Amino acid sequence: MHVDCSCASRRVKGGAEARGNIMPTLVMKFGGTSVANLDRIARASKRVALEVANGYDVIVVVSAMSGKTNELVGWVNETSPLYDAREYDAVVSSGENVTAGLMALRLQEMDIPARSWQGWQVPVQTTSAHANARIEGIPTDNINAKFAEGMKVAVVAGFQGISPEGRITTLGRGGSDTTAVAFAAAFDAERCDIYTDVDGVYTTDPRIVRKARKLDRIAFEEMLELASLGAKVLQTRSVELAMRFGVKLRVLSSFEEPSDNAGTLVCAEEDIMESNVVAGVAYSRDEAKMTLISVADRPGIAAAIFGPLADAGVNVDMIVQNISEEGRTDMTFSCPVDQVVRAQKAMEDAKAGGTINFHDLVADEGVAKVSIVGIGMRSHAGVAAKMFAVLRDEGVNIKVITTSEIKISVLIDRKYMELAVQALHDAFELEKSA
Amino acid sequence: MHVDCSCASRRVKGGAEARGNIMPTLVMKFGGTSVANLDRIARASKRVALEVANGYDVIVVVSAMSGKTNELVGWVNETSPLYDAREYDAVVSSGENVTAGLMALRLQEMDIPARSWQGWQVPVQTTSAHANARIEGIPTDNINAKFAEGMKVAVVAGFQGISPEGRITTLGRGGSDTTAVAFAAAFDAERCDIYTDVDGVYTTDPRIVRKARKLDRIAFEEMLELASLGAKVLQTRSVELAMRFGVKLRVLSSFEEPSDNAGTLVCAEEDIMESNVVAGVAYSRDEAKMTLISVADRPGIAAAIFGPLADAGVNVDMIVQNISEEGRTDMTFSCPVDQVVRAQKAMEDAKAGGTINFHDLVADEGVAKVSIVGIGMRSHAGVAAKMFAVLRDEGVNIKVITTSEIKISVLIDRKYMELAVQALHDAFELEKSA
Repeated sequence: MHVDCSCASRRVKGGAEARGNIMPTLVMKFGGTSVANLDRIARASKRVALEVANGYDVIVVVSAMSGKTNELVGWVNETSPLYDAREYDAVVSSGENVTAGLMALRLQEMDIPARSWQGWQVPVQTTSAHANARIEGIPTDNINAKFAEGMKVAVVAGFQGISPEGRITTLGRGGSDTTAVAFAAAFDAERCDIYTDVDGVYTTDPRIVRKARKLDRIAFEEMLELASLGAKVLQTRSVELAMRFGVKLRVLSSFEEPSDNAGTLVCAEEDIMESNVVAGVAYSRDEAKMTLISVADRPGIAAAIFGPLADAGVNVDMIVQNISEEGRTDMTFSCPVDQVVRAQKAMEDAKAGGTINFHDLVADEGVAKVSIVGIGMRSHAGVAAKMFAVLRDEGVNIKVITTSEIKISVLIDRKYMELAVQALHDAFELEKSA
Repeated sequence: MHVDCSCASRRVKGGAEARGNIMPTLVMKFGGTSVANLDRIARASKRVALEVANGYDVIVVVSAMSGKTNELVGWVNETSPLYDAREYDAVVSSGENVTAGLMALRLQEMDIPARSWQGWQVPVQTTSAHANARIEGIPTDNINAKFAEGMKVAVVAGFQGISPEGRITTLGRGGSDTTAVAFAAAFDAERCDIYTDVDGVYTTDPRIVRKARKLDRIAFEEMLELASLGAKVLQTRSVELAMRFGVKLRVLSSFEEPSDNAGTLVCAEEDIMESNVVAGVAYSRDEAKMTLISVADRPGIAAAIFGPLADAGVNVDMIVQNISEEGRTDMTFSCPVDQVVRAQKAMEDAKAGGTINFHDLVADEGVAKVSIVGIGMRSHAGVAAKMFAVLRDEGVNIKVITTSEIKISVLIDRKYMELAVQALHDAFELEKSA
């Protein structure tokens, strides 16, 4: 996956030295549950005040108050199922603006010079890929000018930016993490602390497996797989960006008392002394499996299918192609279940346009993905075989399999998801540290 | 009152001819109750579609879904009672953005080319008087370029703009009406239709007086007094602007079936054939009466008092000064009850700074204002005497009186407000048309 971010070129001039002072910069990101109401915004503001007292110029990145974005997305979907993504962005970005303003006000009440920044004011420059835009650059001039004038905290509305056409963009769900890491890279921040409602990264979701264990450290690569596989702690692109720019990333709870070894540090592989073969079990509940039946097979057919899907904003994940017989094949892919309508329309349009030809399109909206992840898998054989045996013993049918160097993913019926996660966590003894 | 709006200079080039087509422009404004939920947004969109079918290029100005702005204002007040108005604006403006995007989506679903516009995108240029900014100009280029490309409806987020410093501003409560009239002036619109939850302008609030009668026409001057006195149908500045730029203004209900003579036309005095001496009775419930006791009286003392109040954003309405005795006087003024804290702080600060000197500051937060308005009062004597007699007969004590050519206002205890409105409506026989 490619991350278009020219932040790197700005690191040298973006840092604390660029504004002629010696204050190091810290980025702190607060997710929706950490700013769910005014009390929590006040609590988060206290954390920020602590870091200001520690001598930092702070860039706070905030999400919308929890529930707000879902409410807005619901309204958009109800108004227009195949919505214009530019209007989706204009609507959905408003939640973060509210939080940013409220936190700036709260900090001002604590006598800390603070102001809010909406994406277009910074500006956070993004691509025009609405609802799923990528950050292309974050000029540091405007914010640094205010730091130089005495501002101690810039409260930035996460998840949003501005396109070259001057329209509001959003980075996709969870995009506030990406915003935070991109700011940390652009401003050469000492660390990027992601405050959330969990106290770190776990071997799996503790709501599913009670014995799940908090990891003190996790490698960027593992975190990347866990994030992309649906462990909702950190957004994928934020981890990619952090790895690429060497941003020290810490995940910690905004509900625990501050301490130096709180949370989980996401770091380079060489900074981790020992690790289990499998670091964690991840899942993604709301997947759909879609099969194009009897596709006319020819060179370029995959591009003809997945090009239109990408253009329609469908996030295709797993792809499986059957063996071709008599010039026809079945093509199966997975995507988030809420993109099924969109995917269907893109395929029907492509068929109507004559670029692809298929007999039928079958959607199975009742599947989930379960994965095991670990850098130790590189040097251990038999991990996949053990995973499949565990699932077989539980009577779970595997519908699709994909693998990478450090992960194995399977698509299964959604009703077996929790069972599969528990069984795999037990089998690989993840409750025990290495 | 002065309205800084350079829209006039843009009228010639802003109109339909400027974009090389022959479509006349119509401005339609929908208030909070008219866009309170998705169903109502759909209903309002149907109205817009009708006007597009009638051949108009339409500029729709929308408020926040009803209740949303109050919720946001509540959060701001709770977070920071003496808030930074710049952050207030950043927070409070978000409600309109949501409505604008949703209505654009709804119109697109009806196959009408529409897009949303936030204040900074137009841009709606305003002063830097945050929370109470004035529109200084509305360049028509951006929106006209899109009309020329085929856009039929521009859905503009009302109530907001951008300051010369690039911060978001708001126009004060009810500012969406002002936005609508300013757009009508800038784009030389054929008419500005204000859709609201009442079917026109009444002789008084029908919730208080059941016999209240809808007016078919009302003079700009009368509407201005009614609006500024608290009749919540139209915002004061919107009427001033309409009068100044000759914008045809119609107030009508979004809940009635369309008809040519719906609502109330706000028009020039000469377009009204006959009228009652008193056109209407207005009230403003949430007033406060503040008295600076024993102010050291000297030339310039009024400026020394009301300058800091204006700077603090206090909307002072009535002012009464007692006869000065031995170099000291009492100064009484009224303001909205929610600005009392702000006014007190401004006065204490001014006292501490040595620019004014007073013995005590007494706030009476339990008063309301009741007024009678009518251009016919210019040519009829004895109207004030009749008003005072009516209130005396009802046992209502008058605390402050102010008058203008076409209105008489009194401040009374809030508990007598409804009684006073009813008695005055009866006494001047407003249920009967002229």
